[in-house]
Amino acid sequence: MRRGDTVVFGDAPAVTAWAAAGGKKESEGPLAGGFDTLFTDARLGEETWEMAERGLARSALETALRKARTGAGALDGVFAGDLQCQCTASAYLMRGVDAPFLGLYGACSTMTEALGLAACLVSAGHMRLAAACASSHFCAAERQYRTPLNYGGKRTPTAQWTVTGAGAMLVAPGKSVPKAPRIAAVTFGRVRDFAVRDITNMGAAMAPAACETLLRYFADTGEDPAAIDCVFTGDLGAVGSELLGQLLAREGLRLGPRADCGLLIYDRAEQDVQAGGSGAGCSACVLAAHILPRLAAGRLRRCLVVATGALMSQTTFLQGESIPGIAHLIELRAGAAQKEGSA
Amino acid sequence: MRRGDTVVFGDAPAVTAWAAAGGKKESEGPLAGGFDTLFTDARLGEETWEMAERGLARSALETALRKARTGAGALDGVFAGDLQCQCTASAYLMRGVDAPFLGLYGACSTMTEALGLAACLVSAGHMRLAAACASSHFCAAERQYRTPLNYGGKRTPTAQWTVTGAGAMLVAPGKSVPKAPRIAAVTFGRVRDFAVRDITNMGAAMAPAACETLLRYFADTGEDPAAIDCVFTGDLGAVGSELLGQLLAREGLRLGPRADCGLLIYDRAEQDVQAGGSGAGCSACVLAAHILPRLAAGRLRRCLVVATGALMSQTTFLQGESIPGIAHLIELRAGAAQKEGSA
Repeated sequence: MRRGDTVVFGDAPAVTAWAAAGGKKESEGPLAGGFDTLFTDARLGEETWEMAERGLARSALETALRKARTGAGALDGVFAGDLQCQCTASAYLMRGVDAPFLGLYGACSTMTEALGLAACLVSAGHMRLAAACASSHFCAAERQYRTPLNYGGKRTPTAQWTVTGAGAMLVAPGKSVPKAPRIAAVTFGRVRDFAVRDITNMGAAMAPAACETLLRYFADTGEDPAAIDCVFTGDLGAVGSELLGQLLAREGLRLGPRADCGLLIYDRAEQDVQAGGSGAGCSACVLAAHILPRLAAGRLRRCLVVATGALMSQTTFLQGESIPGIAHLIELRAGAAQKEGSA
Repeated sequence: MRRGDTVVFGDAPAVTAWAAAGGKKESEGPLAGGFDTLFTDARLGEETWEMAERGLARSALETALRKARTGAGALDGVFAGDLQCQCTASAYLMRGVDAPFLGLYGACSTMTEALGLAACLVSAGHMRLAAACASSHFCAAERQYRTPLNYGGKRTPTAQWTVTGAGAMLVAPGKSVPKAPRIAAVTFGRVRDFAVRDITNMGAAMAPAACETLLRYFADTGEDPAAIDCVFTGDLGAVGSELLGQLLAREGLRLGPRADCGLLIYDRAEQDVQAGGSGAGCSACVLAAHILPRLAAGRLRRCLVVATGALMSQTTFLQGESIPGIAHLIELRAGAAQKEGSA
């Protein structure tokens, strides 16, 4: 059922399996134990960082399929995207995955855009099993958006560290796997641009979009913010999270616990990541390594994931354009078994 | 209803309005009369080609909304994509359109990916009115994928000319506008890579994907190819169209009339476009300027549009990777009034 910008699913689709693959820095972070695979070689044995990112995505997708005891042949569609120009990590991933491919670009919001669309098509019966994937790679992103790595540019305190990692999730009709976490609702976001031009401060560029989408979700559904265990933002980092708090306060929306994927994935005190993590792989990895396992274990009953994206390119940056932000929200709930306390 | 890779809509969504905006070369081509707006200035008064492309997309979307006597506020979602790195033509378009934004990347297949997804969400009741848009710009694409324009590189005979243009279409429930053309089915494509490495021969890279998707559509639906008035491929150009014919013959699929958007939009004898047109705007413009008007007028009853995409980037090209191809298919039918011959 559609309410405003929010689709509330009558029979909420299930996330039946998930997996996260990460790199060396992720292996040293607080969520390392939740990853399925961790690679210490930034190239994964490939010749280029771009193909290494494809390797991360492949690892995540193959692991998720293995956990679900199925193969790519069972997939009616793969919704996938990444940060590389022309989304090549996903396109080249799909060269080896014989399933229909729906390429997405939502920058760091890609994971919830993909999950939201997968849930819409599965709930309608248009797909029986869909995969949602997103990935990023620090080295591939840094040289593409900013400066060559070997230039060794000094990073500003507001900068965020692009996650080297990928997450993959499978979405199927809710009744097929009653215990699995559900996608109860999705709010696709609108572009918001508060004229931030600093590509080393993306948290500030994305915070207004996160605020907008949260306001719409609560207005559309009439839900009580106190009923939500936690609101996870995608990758606002320290600066954007602080700004979101200010924006929400100004709008009078009082949320309960709030966490940011970009702050969960690294230890800022120890890992030299400036304002925290970012990248399409950030919310993807935190979903698969942290949020979904907690829903499956009944440690979370109900949460919102609001992945945020900064929609600029190096070209628009050099042309002096400001950074449009977007945020797509999904509401996740623990599966049926957990509701009865039997998890 | 899902059959194989194909979604066949029970109550087929309608394309209720459409518009095409083009540039100077398009204004000199055979379809010029079908465009809603033609700009002779490649910059549209903007400072950059990238922002000019956004201007084309804005023109197409605003015109389609005006034809439907509605505004952006009525849109439950805009599915849009383009060829610019990070799809910035679409992202910056959405800065001025206050509606939920679903960013897509399907290279030159974006238009049918967008229409297919819009139809899926509308048919499910997840959206009441959705827009689908795609755009490209010769100057923005050429310098991004190949060489700076002022380098004046010689173009090979297999090269294709990126369309400077945009198309926008509105999708709503079929019963709301019985006379409007319908999206009867969609087949989302799988990546096919026949190891073509020449970025000046994209038709060859995309033809296998078009063949694959056509084979699946006919196998999934059991339709008789003779029942289809015309199969429009996206932008295979002269080389890819010829190769598709060979592949189809080898597979034993006998189609009736076949046309290619990349060959329809320009006059190859007069316009110096080598193997024909291409770009995400190519099938978008031909749909809005040629195919949809013919369906509305009853001159076409039933056709397939198979937009094709070459999923490489300049980075993967320089890294020596081959070009993955994809093709998304939509089946279009004339609206109810046309069926009764009252058009």
